[in-house]
Amino acid sequence: MSIPKYRIPEMIDIPDRQWPSKSVTKSPIWCSVDMRDGNQALPDPMDPDQKLEYFKLLCDIGFKHIEIGFPSASADEFNFFRTLIEGDLIPDDVFIMGLTQSRPHLIEKTMEAFKGCKRGIVHAYIAPSDLHMKQVFGMERKQLIETAVASTKQIRELADQMPESDIRYEFSPEEFTDTDIDFSVEVCEAVFETWGKATPEKPLIMNLPATVERRPPNHYADMVELFCRKFSQRDRILVSLHAHNDQGMGVASIELGLMAGADRVEGTLFGHGERTGNVDLVTCINNLYSRGIETGIDFSDLGHVAETVERLTGMPIYYRQPYAGTYAFTAFSGSHQDAINKGVHKLTEAPDMFGMGWKVPYMHIDPADLGRKFERLIRINSQSGKGGIAWVLEQDFGIGIPKAMQPELSKYVQGYSEQVGREISADEVHEVFQNEFVAPEGPYELVGYWPRPDDQDPTFIHGEVKLKINGEEKTIQADGNGPISAFVSAIRQVVDVDFTVDDYHEQAIDKGADAQALAYVPLKLAGNGVIFGVGEDSNINQAAVRAIVAGLNRITKK
Amino acid sequence: MSIPKYRIPEMIDIPDRQWPSKSVTKSPIWCSVDMRDGNQALPDPMDPDQKLEYFKLLCDIGFKHIEIGFPSASADEFNFFRTLIEGDLIPDDVFIMGLTQSRPHLIEKTMEAFKGCKRGIVHAYIAPSDLHMKQVFGMERKQLIETAVASTKQIRELADQMPESDIRYEFSPEEFTDTDIDFSVEVCEAVFETWGKATPEKPLIMNLPATVERRPPNHYADMVELFCRKFSQRDRILVSLHAHNDQGMGVASIELGLMAGADRVEGTLFGHGERTGNVDLVTCINNLYSRGIETGIDFSDLGHVAETVERLTGMPIYYRQPYAGTYAFTAFSGSHQDAINKGVHKLTEAPDMFGMGWKVPYMHIDPADLGRKFERLIRINSQSGKGGIAWVLEQDFGIGIPKAMQPELSKYVQGYSEQVGREISADEVHEVFQNEFVAPEGPYELVGYWPRPDDQDPTFIHGEVKLKINGEEKTIQADGNGPISAFVSAIRQVVDVDFTVDDYHEQAIDKGADAQALAYVPLKLAGNGVIFGVGEDSNINQAAVRAIVAGLNRITKK
Repeated sequence: MSIPKYRIPEMIDIPDRQWPSKSVTKSPIWCSVDMRDGNQALPDPMDPDQKLEYFKLLCDIGFKHIEIGFPSASADEFNFFRTLIEGDLIPDDVFIMGLTQSRPHLIEKTMEAFKGCKRGIVHAYIAPSDLHMKQVFGMERKQLIETAVASTKQIRELADQMPESDIRYEFSPEEFTDTDIDFSVEVCEAVFETWGKATPEKPLIMNLPATVERRPPNHYADMVELFCRKFSQRDRILVSLHAHNDQGMGVASIELGLMAGADRVEGTLFGHGERTGNVDLVTCINNLYSRGIETGIDFSDLGHVAETVERLTGMPIYYRQPYAGTYAFTAFSGSHQDAINKGVHKLTEAPDMFGMGWKVPYMHIDPADLGRKFERLIRINSQSGKGGIAWVLEQDFGIGIPKAMQPELSKYVQGYSEQVGREISADEVHEVFQNEFVAPEGPYELVGYWPRPDDQDPTFIHGEVKLKINGEEKTIQADGNGPISAFVSAIRQVVDVDFTVDDYHEQAIDKGADAQALAYVPLKLAGNGVIFGVGEDSNINQAAVRAIVAGLNRITKK
Repeated sequence: MSIPKYRIPEMIDIPDRQWPSKSVTKSPIWCSVDMRDGNQALPDPMDPDQKLEYFKLLCDIGFKHIEIGFPSASADEFNFFRTLIEGDLIPDDVFIMGLTQSRPHLIEKTMEAFKGCKRGIVHAYIAPSDLHMKQVFGMERKQLIETAVASTKQIRELADQMPESDIRYEFSPEEFTDTDIDFSVEVCEAVFETWGKATPEKPLIMNLPATVERRPPNHYADMVELFCRKFSQRDRILVSLHAHNDQGMGVASIELGLMAGADRVEGTLFGHGERTGNVDLVTCINNLYSRGIETGIDFSDLGHVAETVERLTGMPIYYRQPYAGTYAFTAFSGSHQDAINKGVHKLTEAPDMFGMGWKVPYMHIDPADLGRKFERLIRINSQSGKGGIAWVLEQDFGIGIPKAMQPELSKYVQGYSEQVGREISADEVHEVFQNEFVAPEGPYELVGYWPRPDDQDPTFIHGEVKLKINGEEKTIQADGNGPISAFVSAIRQVVDVDFTVDDYHEQAIDKGADAQALAYVPLKLAGNGVIFGVGEDSNINQAAVRAIVAGLNRITKK
């Protein structure tokens, strides 16, 4: 067959488009369709109790437009409207929304579901695309407009009989991105005129769905901009976006659609929905948040939101999902870990020291803003660098490895990871550190060290060391200008290593009730570089001499 | 603190941008970085055997640029280069690529890894962003250019010593989207000049990474277009894209970047990579495929690719991943199922009947092109419509429910789904169909029916029915113009139901060795509507009379 199966989508005719020169600077209205478009695409849809908990979650984090179902589709769906309304479970400033097909008996059922609500949005849809009209409806354009108008009229009449409720109207020309733009505008104008009572204060919602993602997101933006320009009474409608993710560009469609002038966005938390899903509102909202835009939605405890949604939907969140995924803030590679480490330290020292606000390499948002923690940032594998390993020990154990010691430690950790052939945990890094630097095997065992200040000059030390060498205990004495120099003098009398100690680093760490000291001591070997030992004790002097003994054992081991 | 934590990214200064008026009409060169950027971000990186299998997969499906590692990072990484080269495992037309930091000893190690290869791309990177220079390197711009130039010079010198190999050069100004564009161009021009030997036939690859997604994708396109315009010898470089997905817009960044003039795309299968991942090449490539563009990559057995990658990486693919996810082609809702059903049938009858090529509601690509099957399209839940249920029975069991019977069947399936409170399988739909329509409980049991043709006029039938009513067997005789009318006449003598049968529908289905017939028979009740019964038998007459008995049982049950 010579007909090509697929075609490149036709460009939109808008040479003077404005949106690419615009930034999103304020938040749209967010509308959750989790309980309708999301719920209908779960393998196990939520039961009424689960829907109730989901509804409360959405209210708690700040949603004001919430589509709660398709009341004419089943008894469960209908009854859920009644439960919320009759149980007075809807916050005063929240609009509940319900979807209906443009068919008289379904509209009637739908309007019945809204009875007694404070604020409601009745949402009717019909697809004016050629595709739908030809393949599905077998309908002509004139008929389609008549259907949309008749539905709108019916909804208006039924809404007028509910004066106690603030009933708004949302109309979706389904498959907007697959419909001739002038025909979309024509249908929407007819609907607008029939509704008749839209004002800037109570605008009609024109929702423009990219029902199936068949075009790149710039086409969607072009079409939204054109729609906004062509619609006669732009100030009396809210232009709403609704994107799916078939080509993996749903979030971009929303961002570009907002640049093009839209006022409102429909989507679901974590992107549940038909096929590849609706657009993920958690990503859309946090994207704006990451640019300093007030979104009205509180994701400061994103972990709680994620756990709740996972439990209620039965669907796990993808590990690479932006913001919420397990790995969203995980840096695996060494150079990334180094750079994050440096960046965070610099920011902590002086926020905005470079005039960039909060900006760190390999991270575009502070995980703490989402209730996520830095210490979960870094996992260690055989490609992790020294900075990352130091970071893990500092974050998880409060151990501040001196810079000069990091390459040596890193070598051991990498060796261990390659040997076990997998990612290793922070605990395993700590174990490598302990086994190799704090308590290495070897011939020397410190029994005790008594640094006694001189009676005349308390800075002068008479040292006495009890040391086991291969199990045989020796007592050695030596003097020095301080406890460490006296110890080194004593030790050098009995060990067969030519070493000196100069600058060493000590650190107090909290460990349970007792403050402990860690000493990191470099032993300089005559002509053979430097070997570190680490000692731990509540007494700072004892920590240092233990470090020296650990270092000697390490040298002997080699 | 009054400093705002986050800022809106500054617009790119390009009022005369051209890319929004362009379409992608041909495929870029695809470069897989699965074995480097992808592998380094796996909790358990692949071992050498696994990498080898992965490499073969990439070659098999058509990749010609494959980054296989970071040879200076570890012994494993280095040795993998040697294994491929010394084992002669690289197809002649495939370039292997290796990443190196811009540091002399790492470059030396890297170049050693390439020795003896036929075609190689040495990939050096350095981040010229203010962020990196200030927070990480503590380096000024002049120094950074010097470093990039020195690295390029070293690589060129070492490459010149390998005349037997076709060694190309790729340079990445890391964090391109976070770097002043003129400075990026300046660095790249210096690198280009130092390399010296780029030609249109052997171009230098300038890879422009969105290392962290900090901007909307239109900004990336603006920057790519500006880079292409400003670079002095555009025809001697390949402009390459490399996007990550921190804001969920990686795929869009690639699409818009291609519109802006790029020639090449780096990414990973299914989007493995640091944090939220690299851009997913499966999505990017199939997006172009879905528009009829020849991509050079074969995803006709996407299931095999997915299974292999899942097994080797140890990471499951997300269920809503475009193209590859379990649900990518699943329609849950009834109206979607109806529409897909109609669309596919129309296309099968007459491909391109509407002049749109392959176009179906709620689906932008034919799953069969990816080796996925239509019968897995539809799952049934309580919101599924009659079309979807009919579709499942037809696809999975070859059962063609007549249209008039669909609403009744649908009611039972929905009731069942609501009762069990979950999605139900195709087998369960079939079970509901069997239990309710084929073998419903009831007082009547057909023992046998003998429609004997009249000796004179074989179209005239003398029927004999043996029927058990509540266990008690009766034999009834009646004549008719055909086997069914004779049966109905006989039956009406003993049952207490006033019914007629007119048009009924029969269907032959293959079931194992025997061809079976299914009969769908509507019983019209006097004033009480229509009840369907279904019968199955190898003999078409027997199937029909079984259907009548089933229908009578159903009526009695009510």
